[in-house]
Amino acid sequence: MDKSKFGLLSNIIYPADLRKLNVEQLPEICKELREDIIDEVSVNPGHFASSLGVVEITVALHYVYNTPEDRIVWDVGHQAYGHKILTGRRDKFCTNRKFHGICPFPNPRESEYDTFTCGHASNSISAALGMAVAAKHNDQRHVVAVIGDGAMSGGLAFEGLNNASSTPNDLLIILNDNDMSIDRAVGGMEQYLLNLDTNETYNRLRFKASKWLHSKGYLNEDRRKGIIRLNNALKSAISHQQNIFEGMNIRYFGPFDGHNVKEIVRVLQQLKNMKGPKLLHLHTVKGKGYEPAEKAATIWHAPGKFDPETGERMIADSSNLPPRFQDVFGKTLLELAEQNPNIVGVTPAMPTGCSMNIMQKEMPDRVFDVGIAEGHSITFSGGMAKDGLQPFCNIYSAFAQRAYDNIIHDVTILNLPVVICLDRAGLVGEDGPTHHGVFDMAALRPIPNITIASPMDEHELRRLMYTAQLPDKGTFVIRYPRGRGVLTDWKCPLEEIEVGTGRKLHDGKDVAILSIGPIGNNVENAIKDYCASDNTLSVAHYDMRFLKPLDNNLLHEIGKKFNRIITIEDGVRNGGFGSSILEWMSDNGYTPKITRLGIPDSFVEHGPVDELQKICHIDSDSIIDAIKNLR
Amino acid sequence: MDKSKFGLLSNIIYPADLRKLNVEQLPEICKELREDIIDEVSVNPGHFASSLGVVEITVALHYVYNTPEDRIVWDVGHQAYGHKILTGRRDKFCTNRKFHGICPFPNPRESEYDTFTCGHASNSISAALGMAVAAKHNDQRHVVAVIGDGAMSGGLAFEGLNNASSTPNDLLIILNDNDMSIDRAVGGMEQYLLNLDTNETYNRLRFKASKWLHSKGYLNEDRRKGIIRLNNALKSAISHQQNIFEGMNIRYFGPFDGHNVKEIVRVLQQLKNMKGPKLLHLHTVKGKGYEPAEKAATIWHAPGKFDPETGERMIADSSNLPPRFQDVFGKTLLELAEQNPNIVGVTPAMPTGCSMNIMQKEMPDRVFDVGIAEGHSITFSGGMAKDGLQPFCNIYSAFAQRAYDNIIHDVTILNLPVVICLDRAGLVGEDGPTHHGVFDMAALRPIPNITIASPMDEHELRRLMYTAQLPDKGTFVIRYPRGRGVLTDWKCPLEEIEVGTGRKLHDGKDVAILSIGPIGNNVENAIKDYCASDNTLSVAHYDMRFLKPLDNNLLHEIGKKFNRIITIEDGVRNGGFGSSILEWMSDNGYTPKITRLGIPDSFVEHGPVDELQKICHIDSDSIIDAIKNLR
Repeated sequence: MDKSKFGLLSNIIYPADLRKLNVEQLPEICKELREDIIDEVSVNPGHFASSLGVVEITVALHYVYNTPEDRIVWDVGHQAYGHKILTGRRDKFCTNRKFHGICPFPNPRESEYDTFTCGHASNSISAALGMAVAAKHNDQRHVVAVIGDGAMSGGLAFEGLNNASSTPNDLLIILNDNDMSIDRAVGGMEQYLLNLDTNETYNRLRFKASKWLHSKGYLNEDRRKGIIRLNNALKSAISHQQNIFEGMNIRYFGPFDGHNVKEIVRVLQQLKNMKGPKLLHLHTVKGKGYEPAEKAATIWHAPGKFDPETGERMIADSSNLPPRFQDVFGKTLLELAEQNPNIVGVTPAMPTGCSMNIMQKEMPDRVFDVGIAEGHSITFSGGMAKDGLQPFCNIYSAFAQRAYDNIIHDVTILNLPVVICLDRAGLVGEDGPTHHGVFDMAALRPIPNITIASPMDEHELRRLMYTAQLPDKGTFVIRYPRGRGVLTDWKCPLEEIEVGTGRKLHDGKDVAILSIGPIGNNVENAIKDYCASDNTLSVAHYDMRFLKPLDNNLLHEIGKKFNRIITIEDGVRNGGFGSSILEWMSDNGYTPKITRLGIPDSFVEHGPVDELQKICHIDSDSIIDAIKNLR
Repeated sequence: MDKSKFGLLSNIIYPADLRKLNVEQLPEICKELREDIIDEVSVNPGHFASSLGVVEITVALHYVYNTPEDRIVWDVGHQAYGHKILTGRRDKFCTNRKFHGICPFPNPRESEYDTFTCGHASNSISAALGMAVAAKHNDQRHVVAVIGDGAMSGGLAFEGLNNASSTPNDLLIILNDNDMSIDRAVGGMEQYLLNLDTNETYNRLRFKASKWLHSKGYLNEDRRKGIIRLNNALKSAISHQQNIFEGMNIRYFGPFDGHNVKEIVRVLQQLKNMKGPKLLHLHTVKGKGYEPAEKAATIWHAPGKFDPETGERMIADSSNLPPRFQDVFGKTLLELAEQNPNIVGVTPAMPTGCSMNIMQKEMPDRVFDVGIAEGHSITFSGGMAKDGLQPFCNIYSAFAQRAYDNIIHDVTILNLPVVICLDRAGLVGEDGPTHHGVFDMAALRPIPNITIASPMDEHELRRLMYTAQLPDKGTFVIRYPRGRGVLTDWKCPLEEIEVGTGRKLHDGKDVAILSIGPIGNNVENAIKDYCASDNTLSVAHYDMRFLKPLDNNLLHEIGKKFNRIITIEDGVRNGGFGSSILEWMSDNGYTPKITRLGIPDSFVEHGPVDELQKICHIDSDSIIDAIKNLR
């Protein structure tokens, strides 16, 4: 890639270099940074449109604030590519998302410019508020949170805002508003008022006036509040909008054009030393500066490789490949919904990501995209189930951690018939530790009144989905992974699977391997390879299919026959599937030697799933090793 | 108790009886209902002030709506005593909170008038929205959620509101505002406007006018929205308030006097058939109608037994009893904070409940009550820890389920030094299944980078708290129960406990009992009783103290010496402490017979802790039985 075209950017290793520039040079820097992101992502795929949208905000923040001493907290890290490039990682950016390369999201272990974990949406205000309080306590540094309007729907963001309004702090929250989901209207009068409002002179005047009135005894606390209320209400009346932030006593500034870098710099400089919590509302365009992405931001969220000149995406021919699990989910859900009028779909902001858009297109009234709000998605499903509907609520496994109490308190206590589909269960690959869905089995199986299953292939997924919506099945969890299945001919008849039954896939005499979910395919491969090279031990394979309830009959058969057992799961070893087999054997008086394969007790890095499986010893070779170790 | 004084109430078994009355009789019903609650709770203690505050709302709701066909969803069930009394449970109300008596909170398994689980705050809007959507789909019934202003700070409530504004529904949300935490001002002009606003004629007129303009083509969608905005802004300007609900496009009515039952009935009748989501803001006084409770609502939240005439509370002399664990926490925290200037306290709305008010009183700037916002409390703590503070975040164990993802994503991934104190861990007694803190150990131990400990007594709690705040301890969880400890002389020196070390309390040859936390005291009692009556087996007792990391040295000692082990915990058996011992023994090649005692796989009812321990087989007698079964 020709990096010589980046005349200014080439000289910027760290933000301190950026801060040496004249403000007039910033538009050029933005242009170069944008081109650099386009060039990089076109050959090394990753998130794209979000980072293009915040180029100017990124440059302005590092220009105005003294990073890394001042703190920038990004909400959802896939917008932070520009930030990474400007903070010492331009040379390494070609390794983004790669195994042992730089992380897909900001990571404080990677750089002191990265201030917090930001894989799950809506946490920036809370975390930044903590830092702002610490700054008041110790260091007097500045703290800024940058949050998108999508993430603002998360309850955590609201809890953060609510607390920011009542705790002494000088936090600045930047609302990066790029999809019109927050209602507003822009007009001349309003723009004038708002410009006035961020003008330091005006604010100083207002402050001085209020101090003067106060010192003269004209302004007691009630009158002062009254004046603030009147100001706010006036602004509200003229701007034709209700402003929820000022309703929470967080001073609101904006909206401004989030692509006018010089204006953002001016506003930030005015806000920088202003006391109290405040919110700056900026409008941006997702994909800004790259026309194809501006037109179709969803497709260009993470477009894969593309030709930067033509905008042509290089989509590999997948017609002969097995389908993605998510598409089997999406198509089967529609099929079931056509038969069962009580079925409704619920998704926390992932209709495309989980393929519920297939049903949404046909039955828009029966699909509820509730925004980034995992907890609500479950409780809302519970309410619908209580009054006769049959919700299928689909959440990425790692994000469903947000709904843990909702699953316990709002669904299982009443054994409500909510089908909870956990997409992206197990190792997810390049998105890394915040996105691996490895805790679900260990966290959910202690809950009473819950059925938990995982399909080994697409047929099993379809059958489990069919089974889950039959009468009297109660709360039913189905977990399945990111990516493709193993069967090209995936469309089997919809048949019931008896709850709590596994199946024997391979008979054997010496060792039984018990698996759950698609990792069972690694077992099948391992047995094939093992049999081809070494036949000392005769190995059986059972796909247990249900984590809960376990298959008592099958386990008695196994317990009686085998004194060597290997369990394998694409979830954490501590407390997971293997642990449940240990418990069952112990409770039922069997004493086999049990080897448990699964995710070890550490956060797993990012990289291709097959590499990560090796690290975790759940790849086929590791299974063969485990068999050999039993001799 | 003289029930003959209740002339009207005596004839009301179900709400249908109430609905036969003339509206003029309702104030008398409210008076009688209030007296009945006072009489009942004075002799059979329970929650008090909240239910007194919603007497009029309760009567009005059951009068106007066709319950149980229409749905009332209470947020936090301790306000629902009046509801219970009016819905067929007056005769049984004397068994409230008692073992096998009626439930402390509404419970759909108990009555069809109880619509949803309501032990954890802030879930009513989400659940009721689900029901409102189901009603649109099927039954056309009315749905009302009743939520207090305290619960409005929970992120789940916001997620529910946010979704209510964008999903077609006719939900009515009643905001029961009783502690001034939501800013507002009441004036004549405003009251006029608001009265006008709830007048059906006016609304019908407004609706007709808009339809007419629309039909004439005068009103396109943009103009219609503009008019709504203008109306809202005008109302906002005149009422001197920012209204966050109308900012979210949920129509707002109020505030009204929540103790004027006839007015509430009138307003509800006007709102009942109004389309779209709407919010009715009512002012109430917690403890209304009972002067001592009005004056000190916190004390009278759950006052214990009292004399209804004098208001004198019957407080048992506790001077010779061991202290409550929560007070040892509170006093020790202050002691530590005096030594370590980086310590800060964080509580989600429970400063009194967890005794952090002891530190709050002395160091108000270093204690953060963040409101009902468990997720935020953890992420906020993570932010503070990232920048050098040492937070102690105290959450009731069952409520900490709300913060599960925050513990993973915002604290442990970076191994941030947040001390998470889980009060009310284990069985809590009369508050029942929603409040038992029995999932924490099983749910938390699969998380990497986390230390989990539980003290057997007050000294151990103090030492663990001291240890947790020493440098480089990372994320540190300390769980301890509701109620009193076992040591009256609780104030020991603060000394470090080496992380991951247990202790041998009783030596023995035949059986080893491994316990964690205060349930170890049951083991001590069991061994004493067992030795007194039967000496067949020599029993050792180990207080493991740390669930994670486990004490490798001690476990090797145990594994080598014993082939019979009993584990006991006041948490769920599935995946909990006993499960971790099974895993360790299996991984390390030991094959003892292990009996795991703990909470079985079902939700545990309410009642005295000693009764519940018997049901769960973790009382001393059950331990003796477990020993005898090993012979």
